[in-house]
Parts: sequence; structure tokens; C-alpha cells
Amino acid sequence: MPDQQLTPEQLFAVTTLKGWDLWLGRTTKFFDSLTDEQMFTEIAPGKNRAIYLFGHLAIVSDAMIPQMGLGEASYAHLREAFLAQPDRAAEIPSVAELRAIWKEVHSRVDTVFAALTPAEWLAGHATVSAEDFAAQPHRNRLSILLSRTSHLGYHLGQLQLMPR
Amino acid sequence: MPDQQLTPEQLFAVTTLKGWDLWLGRTTKFFDSLTDEQMFTEIAPGKNRAIYLFGHLAIVSDAMIPQMGLGEASYAHLREAFLAQPDRAAEIPSVAELRAIWKEVHSRVDTVFAALTPAEWLAGHATVSAEDFAAQPHRNRLSILLSRTSHLGYHLGQLQLMPR
Repeated sequence: MPDQQLTPEQLFAVTTLKGWDLWLGRTTKFFDSLTDEQMFTEIAPGKNRAIYLFGHLAIVSDAMIPQMGLGEASYAHLREAFLAQPDRAAEIPSVAELRAIWKEVHSRVDTVFAALTPAEWLAGHATVSAEDFAAQPHRNRLSILLSRTSHLGYHLGQLQLMPR
Repeated sequence: MPDQQLTPEQLFAVTTLKGWDLWLGRTTKFFDSLTDEQMFTEIAPGKNRAIYLFGHLAIVSDAMIPQMGLGEASYAHLREAFLAQPDRAAEIPSVAELRAIWKEVHSRVDTVFAALTPAEWLAGHATVSAEDFAAQPHRNRLSILLSRTSHLGYHLGQLQLMPR
């Protein structure tokens, strides 16, 4: 449907999704520009390596699916390495594997998000109780997408400081 | 009005504003935690000083008002120093002055944003022509707020790397 025929609710959802797409596109472009070797560079002395943030952001995106109550994560087994543990504490997949995971995860969330109606965006997410949600209906799926969009920005800002 | 009585459109607007408030709160807390001396620390060797990002983010917030077509900026005269010029290229106000500007700017945008109806959030912003907006109605005020929220995250991520 062309944008101009959208209802206000649809337009709110579309505008928010375009924001996600914008920051995801910038972040993907950044990682695409790194050689496999540069993936092992630290963003600043003693700080995370790019590869850790690459895996971290992929797994945070993957985790949105269960957090929104929309299915199982595809890479739950990588949460330990990229969410629970800091960089260098756990075994991680190769750069090539992570590049494939990045694509797959974001292709999946893209499909899942595109299918949600405005009312479904406003439904409570999986980590808020029915009681809490009744009192705080802003704790909805949309709030997860907004939070993860700014989280992409947070780490992209750090990555831009990386010596190259 | 309690959240639970909101229409879907109002809930979209409220959820987005809560996202802005969250990142603004985190960023304000960070700068509040810095001494005036620490404001002059570089976030990484050879990169921006905290004080520059403090002024930059305040002026970007201030600029939302005219960008949204909601009035004049309060600190247009500081755009040159904090938007057009890089750090150390221009005279900047003192830390105390910038702390006052930060408060005033965000108190003003807070008031202005709280008064907008959902339909007003979906209106075109000042830098998009009527013709372009008809074809691309996602280029609305909401998209500016979303962009500036992730922009706060972008620089907050960098600031967190600052040696302290």
C-alpha cells in the first residue's frame, strides 16, 4: 500500500519501522566495510572488539522475537557469549558465521515486523505481566523496537571511534 | 489522562515520547555525574571532548523546534560552534552556562512535545516540501523525534567509553 493511503495508526508504525531500518542500515554498512581482520580491532584501548559488538547486536535483534512474544529466538545458544558474558570470556563463532547470522536474523525480524498490525505493535510484550500492562500500556512491542533502535545507535557511535 | 484511557494513536505518541525521555534521562544523568573538569576529557584519544558533545546534543535538541515547525530555536547562535564546527574550532560557553542551556532547552522541548496531538506528530516537518510529504508522509515530526532519540544513544555510547 503506498504510504499516502495509510491510516494514522499505520503511519505511526511505518514511521517507527523506517527509523529501525535507517539505524540497522547504517550499522550493517559499517560492519560490511570492515575486513575480517578489522573485526578483531578494539573500539578503544581495552574495550570491546568490533566482532563482539557485531555478535551482541545480532543476538539482541534475535532476542526481540521472544521478547515480543512472536516466537522462539533462532540463536538462543549464543546469548551466553554475547549477552551474559563480556568480550573475550567465551568461545564465539567465526566472522563468516556471524556475518551469515546477522543477515538471517535481520531478514527474519524484517518479515515478522512487516506482518504486524498497529494494534499488534501496541500489544504487551512478553516480559510484562497482564496486570502491569493494564496500568502501563506503553510497555508494548513498539517500546522494544524503539529501545533496540537506540541501542543500535549507542554501539554504532562507539564503533565509529574505532581506529581503522 | 491515565495511560489506560489512551486511544491507539495517543498510545503510539506516548510510547515514542517515553523512549525519548528514557534516553534523555540517561544522557542527563551521565553529564550530571561529570565534574566541570571531567567535561574537558576526550571520549577517546584525539576525539571530541565531553563538553563539545554536551553542547552539541543541547543544540540538536534546540534545533528540533524549528525543524518541526514549532517556533524559533533559543540558541541558534550556538549552531556554528556545536553543529557546523568540530570541537576546539570555536569559542564555546562555560560549563555552567551549558548546564543551564541543557536544562532550559529540554524543559522547553518537554513542554512543546507534551502539547502535540497524535495528528500533529504526523504532520510534515519544516524541511520537507508539501509535494515530497504527500508522497512520503513518514517524513513527519515523529521521524525527527525518533532520529534525535537514537542520536542521543549514539553519543551516549561514545561518552561511556570516556576514561574517568
